[in-house]
Amino acid sequence: MRDAGWRVTGLHHVAIAHADDPVCEDALASLIGPPGHAEEGPGFLERMYELGPTALQTLEATGDGVVRRFLDRRGPGLHHIAFEVDAIEPALADLAGRNVHLIDREARAGGMGTRIAFIHPAAFGGVLVELVEGPRRANASIGGGDG
Amino acid sequence: MRDAGWRVTGLHHVAIAHADDPVCEDALASLIGPPGHAEEGPGFLERMYELGPTALQTLEATGDGVVRRFLDRRGPGLHHIAFEVDAIEPALADLAGRNVHLIDREARAGGMGTRIAFIHPAAFGGVLVELVEGPRRANASIGGGDG
Repeated sequence: MRDAGWRVTGLHHVAIAHADDPVCEDALASLIGPPGHAEEGPGFLERMYELGPTALQTLEATGDGVVRRFLDRRGPGLHHIAFEVDAIEPALADLAGRNVHLIDREARAGGMGTRIAFIHPAAFGGVLVELVEGPRRANASIGGGDG
Repeated sequence: MRDAGWRVTGLHHVAIAHADDPVCEDALASLIGPPGHAEEGPGFLERMYELGPTALQTLEATGDGVVRRFLDRRGPGLHHIAFEVDAIEPALADLAGRNVHLIDREARAGGMGTRIAFIHPAAFGGVLVELVEGPRRANASIGGGDG
């Protein structure tokens, strides 16, 4: 592959959107254990179910926002996939330079101390793709201090 | 969790369905390298992009079948997630005993020498879930077409 100062190091998580569906949460908990982390976002509640080096994330719509709009358009189901990258700024610069359609041209704060950016679904055949740099584990140290 | 003679041991793969979309395939190859395996299914071509202990799977519709019907209904995008299990028969017996809505009550042959079964999306808030037992790696048993 290219040498552009960054690489994908794993599948960070797969996200599922729903409106208020205990069936989905119970089924995941039954299969892989209770969520290791929960965090509020703008208009949604995010839960992370750890599964080895990756995770299932649920996005429960709690108000207006991107999750509610997704549900209105597509209904509940798989929402996005997130690749872990080792260096998100070089990744975004490289992708922008290759005219990949980015939603976020600059990285921003994600859950659990991560830095994130979304790539437009048009770039992946209809799949919303997130890039994540930073700690995945709820109990990982959230240090960094990269500002 | 329960002790029912089986457990989920990882995320086997995440699947993306598309009609005939080189953009999606090229984007995945660019990010994580070329597919390590390709295999024909009924009405679709399946490719596996290895990513550490998990994989991205693309399902390209090549004729009538479940992939084409999904595309007609939902359009291209994320299709299903597959959990790796250590014992698929006990898993299916356990789930059936708990009245989980199964698509496949018996395991059947999947790609790359695996045994698989699908759980109905109603059991996971609209997400189609596959269970997989068996080797994941393309180089585990099936040869390539490079003779």
